[in-house]
Amino acid sequence: MNLSMIRYIAGWILSFEAAFLSLPCLIALLYREKEGIAFVAVLLVCLAIGLLLVWKKPKNTVFFAKEGFVSAALCWIIMSIFGALPFVLCGDIPSFTDALFETISGFTTTGASVLKDVESLSRCSMFWRCFTHWIGGMGVIVFLMTVLPLTGGSWIHLLRAESPGPSVGKLVPRMRHTAGILYLIYLCMTIIEIVLLLFGGVNWFDAVTISFGTAGTGGFSILNSGFVTYSSYVKIVVAVFMMLFGVNFNVYFLMLNRKFVQALRCEELRYYLMIIGISTLIITLNILSICGSFGKALEEAFFQVSSIITTTGFASADFNLWPQTSKTILVLLMFIGACAGSTGGGIKVSRLVILIKTIRKELASIIHPRSVKKIKMEGKPVEHEVLRSTNVFMITYVILFAFSVLLISFNGFDLTTNFTAVAATLNNIGPGLELVGPTGNFGFFSSFSKYVLMFDMLAGRLELFPMLLFFSPSTWMQSGFVRKKRFPLCKR
Amino acid sequence: MNLSMIRYIAGWILSFEAAFLSLPCLIALLYREKEGIAFVAVLLVCLAIGLLLVWKKPKNTVFFAKEGFVSAALCWIIMSIFGALPFVLCGDIPSFTDALFETISGFTTTGASVLKDVESLSRCSMFWRCFTHWIGGMGVIVFLMTVLPLTGGSWIHLLRAESPGPSVGKLVPRMRHTAGILYLIYLCMTIIEIVLLLFGGVNWFDAVTISFGTAGTGGFSILNSGFVTYSSYVKIVVAVFMMLFGVNFNVYFLMLNRKFVQALRCEELRYYLMIIGISTLIITLNILSICGSFGKALEEAFFQVSSIITTTGFASADFNLWPQTSKTILVLLMFIGACAGSTGGGIKVSRLVILIKTIRKELASIIHPRSVKKIKMEGKPVEHEVLRSTNVFMITYVILFAFSVLLISFNGFDLTTNFTAVAATLNNIGPGLELVGPTGNFGFFSSFSKYVLMFDMLAGRLELFPMLLFFSPSTWMQSGFVRKKRFPLCKR
Repeated sequence: MNLSMIRYIAGWILSFEAAFLSLPCLIALLYREKEGIAFVAVLLVCLAIGLLLVWKKPKNTVFFAKEGFVSAALCWIIMSIFGALPFVLCGDIPSFTDALFETISGFTTTGASVLKDVESLSRCSMFWRCFTHWIGGMGVIVFLMTVLPLTGGSWIHLLRAESPGPSVGKLVPRMRHTAGILYLIYLCMTIIEIVLLLFGGVNWFDAVTISFGTAGTGGFSILNSGFVTYSSYVKIVVAVFMMLFGVNFNVYFLMLNRKFVQALRCEELRYYLMIIGISTLIITLNILSICGSFGKALEEAFFQVSSIITTTGFASADFNLWPQTSKTILVLLMFIGACAGSTGGGIKVSRLVILIKTIRKELASIIHPRSVKKIKMEGKPVEHEVLRSTNVFMITYVILFAFSVLLISFNGFDLTTNFTAVAATLNNIGPGLELVGPTGNFGFFSSFSKYVLMFDMLAGRLELFPMLLFFSPSTWMQSGFVRKKRFPLCKR
Repeated sequence: MNLSMIRYIAGWILSFEAAFLSLPCLIALLYREKEGIAFVAVLLVCLAIGLLLVWKKPKNTVFFAKEGFVSAALCWIIMSIFGALPFVLCGDIPSFTDALFETISGFTTTGASVLKDVESLSRCSMFWRCFTHWIGGMGVIVFLMTVLPLTGGSWIHLLRAESPGPSVGKLVPRMRHTAGILYLIYLCMTIIEIVLLLFGGVNWFDAVTISFGTAGTGGFSILNSGFVTYSSYVKIVVAVFMMLFGVNFNVYFLMLNRKFVQALRCEELRYYLMIIGISTLIITLNILSICGSFGKALEEAFFQVSSIITTTGFASADFNLWPQTSKTILVLLMFIGACAGSTGGGIKVSRLVILIKTIRKELASIIHPRSVKKIKMEGKPVEHEVLRSTNVFMITYVILFAFSVLLISFNGFDLTTNFTAVAATLNNIGPGLELVGPTGNFGFFSSFSKYVLMFDMLAGRLELFPMLLFFSPSTWMQSGFVRKKRFPLCKR
C-alpha cells in the first residue's frame, strides 16, 4: 500500500475543503452571523493539516486499484468529518453524530436530514449544508484531477472509484482535459438555473441554495415545508433542471463538440426519458382525484418523478399520502436512479439496461443454444469485464441492502420505514416513505442505525466497493505488497 | 420445436394426475362424501385426454433445452388447471380463479390460500389440497422420469427446468436410478413423520395431511388456526421435519451409501444449519418477553425459522405481532430459502453462498489484481457457467420481483403487504406480513393480482426461466427451427 500517496491526496482534499469553507465564511460576514467563527476555525485547521500533509511530495507515485479505492473512501470520510465540525462548533447541530450524518448526507448528495427545524439554522450553516451537495455532486476527486499535475495513469483508479456508472466511458483517454470541461458544464448549468430562478422572483440566497441542491441531485431544502410554497414556475424550472442533471454528462460534452446526432442517439438517454415519461403519465392519472386538475397533477407527478429518479429528493408534495401505485412507482424509481456519468445516484439506467439485456440474452441462448450473441449498448458490444462487474455490483448491492435493513430493524420501526430508509440512503435520494417520508426526518433513529445509514450513503455514492474495501481487514494486510510492486498496472 | 414430444409428455402428466386423483376419490368413499363425484369425473377426463395424447409415440424424440423448459412450464400449468377443476365442480371453491390459485399454490408448495374458512372444505378436497403439496414437492417430471422409458439424454433438459438449485449436481449421470432412490427417501421420510405424529395423538387424517405439507415444504393447514392448537410435541416434530426436508437430498443419498463423512462435510448443509441456528437464537431473545419463558420462545422461534427458511409456511404463531427485528429476519429468510436439491423454494443457500463468494473474490481481485483465484464450493472450483447462470438468476429474480410488486400495487394495499405477498409467492412460502400474514389470506386481491401471483408461484417453483420462456413470444417463432436441428445438443 502506497501510504505516502494516500497521505498526499488526503492532504490536497483537506486543502480544498478549506477553500470551499471560505464561502460560508463570506456568507457569515454578509449576514453578520457569529456562527461564522466556527467556520473560520475549521477552515484554518483544515488548511494547516492539509498543507502539512502535502508538504512532502511522495517519491513513489505508483498507484494501484487498491490504493485508488482506499483513498477515495478515506477522502470522503475525512471530508465529511471536517465538514461536520462547523455545525457542532457553532451549535447549530450540537450532536456530532447528527452533524456527521447531515454532512455525509450533503456530500453524498443524499439529502436525508436529521433536522426537525431546518429554518432555525444560521445562514452560513444553511449555505454550507447546501454547498456540500454541489461539491459532492461532481466529485471532489474529479475536481482534484483537473487542477493537480500528477502522473496521468494513477488517476484512473481514483476516478474509477469515485465516478458513477458501469464504466468510465469514452472520456477516459483525455481525462484531465475532459474533467475540466465537465466541471465547466456543471458550473454553467448551475448558473443558468440560478438566473432562471431569480427571474421567477426567488431571492438570491434561495436561488443559489436550491440550485446547489438540484445540480448535485442532493435534495436539502432550506424550508421546513420543502417546495410546497414555491410557485409553479419555480417547481417546473427545478423539475426540468433535476432531469437535466440526471443526464449523462457525456451527452452535453458531445453537444458542446457539435455532435448532436451522436448525443441524441445515446441509448441510456432514451431509456431514461422513456422511464420518466411513462412514470409521470401513470402517476398523473393515479393522483388526478387528489390534485383536482390534470395540469396540477402533471406538475406534481413530473416534479416528483424527476426528483426521485435523479435521486435528488426535493419534495413538492407529501407523496406518503398518494395512492399505492404511485408510491410503488416512486420506490422503484429510487432503485433505478439516474444515468451513469451524471450527478445522480441509484443503480443507474445503463446498468439496468445491461441487466435486462443479460436476461434477454439468457432466454435467447436457451432458444438458440449455439448462437453467440454479444450484448450491445450504445451500438457497441459490451465488454465481458463490464458485464461481470455489473452483475457483481448488483449482487453486492442486494446483499448490502438486505444486511442494512436487518441492522436498522433493531430500532423497531415498521418494515416500510426501514426498507425505504435504506433505499433512500443507499441510492442517495433523501426521503423514503412512512416515518422517513417527505415530511419526516431521520433524527429518530438510534446512533447505531445512523452510522449504518451513513455507511450506506457513502457506499452508494462511491458505488459500494471503495467502502467495502476500506472496512475489510484483508485490505490492510501487507502480504500482497511485494507481488503488486512487480506488476505496476497503471504505469502507462 | 418438437411439438409431438411435448404433447406426449403432457399426456403422461395428465395420466399421472388421473392416478393421483384416485386418492381423494378413496377418501370421499371413506367419508361417504358426495363431493367425490367431482373428483371421479375429473379423474376420468384426465385419463381420457391423457391416454389420447400418449396414444401415438412420437417418432422424433430429439429434445432440446427450449422444449425442456417449455414442456416443464406447460406440464405444471395443465396439471394445475385440471387439479383445480374438482374444487370448482364440487362447489368447495366456486370461483375458478380462486380454485386455480389454490391448486397452483398447492403444486408449487407455496401454501398461500385464498380461503377464509379452510375447515368448511369437504374431506376429499382437503386431502387433495394437501396432496398437491406432496406431488409438487419432489416434482412430477422427476417422477415421470423414474417410470418412463425414454432416451436418457432428453431428460436432462426437463430435469434442469424442474429441479431447484444452481446445478443438477453429481446425481445426474445415473439419473434415472437416482431419481427413484430420491423418491423412495422422500416417501420413507414422509411415512416416518406420519408415524411420529400418530404417536403424538394426532388423528390419522391430520397426520397424513400435515406430513404432506411438511414433506413438500408446502404449508397448507387443515385448521383455520394453523398450528396454534397443536401440542409442543407435534410442533417440534413438524419443525424438525421441515428442517430435514429443506436439506439437499444428495446428503441423504450419500448417507444411504454410507458416505457419512462426505455427507456431513457438505458446505451448503453447514451454512443452512448455521443460518437456522443464528436466526433462531436472535428471534428467541427478541420474543422472550412475548412468550414468557425461554423454552416457549425457543420453540416458537425454531418452528417459525424452520417453517420460513424451508419455505413451508406453517404458522404456529401470528408473527405479524412479533417485534420488528424478528419480522425482518423472517422476511430475509423468505429470500434465502432452503438448500438446492431439496423440496424447498427461495433463492437457495448454495446460490447465496456462491454470490457472497463472488463478492469476496471481487474485493480480493482489487487488492491482488493479477491473482487468478477460482471460487470454490464443496471443495471444488465452481464452473464459470454455474457462476454466470447464478448471477443471471439473481438479476432476473430481482427484476421480476420489482415488476410483480408494481403490478399488484394497482390493488392499492400497503407496501409491506404487496412486498411480502410477492416474496411469499415467488419464494413459494405462503404467508407474508400485514394483510397476507399468518392469520390473513390472499382472497382479497383482485383477479388480475391473483394471476400475477400465480405466475410468480410457478416461476418460483420452476426457477424463473421456464415460465419466462413459455410466455415469451420469441419462443414460439419457428425461425430457429432448422438451425437447431443441425445441432442435436442432447443426443448422448
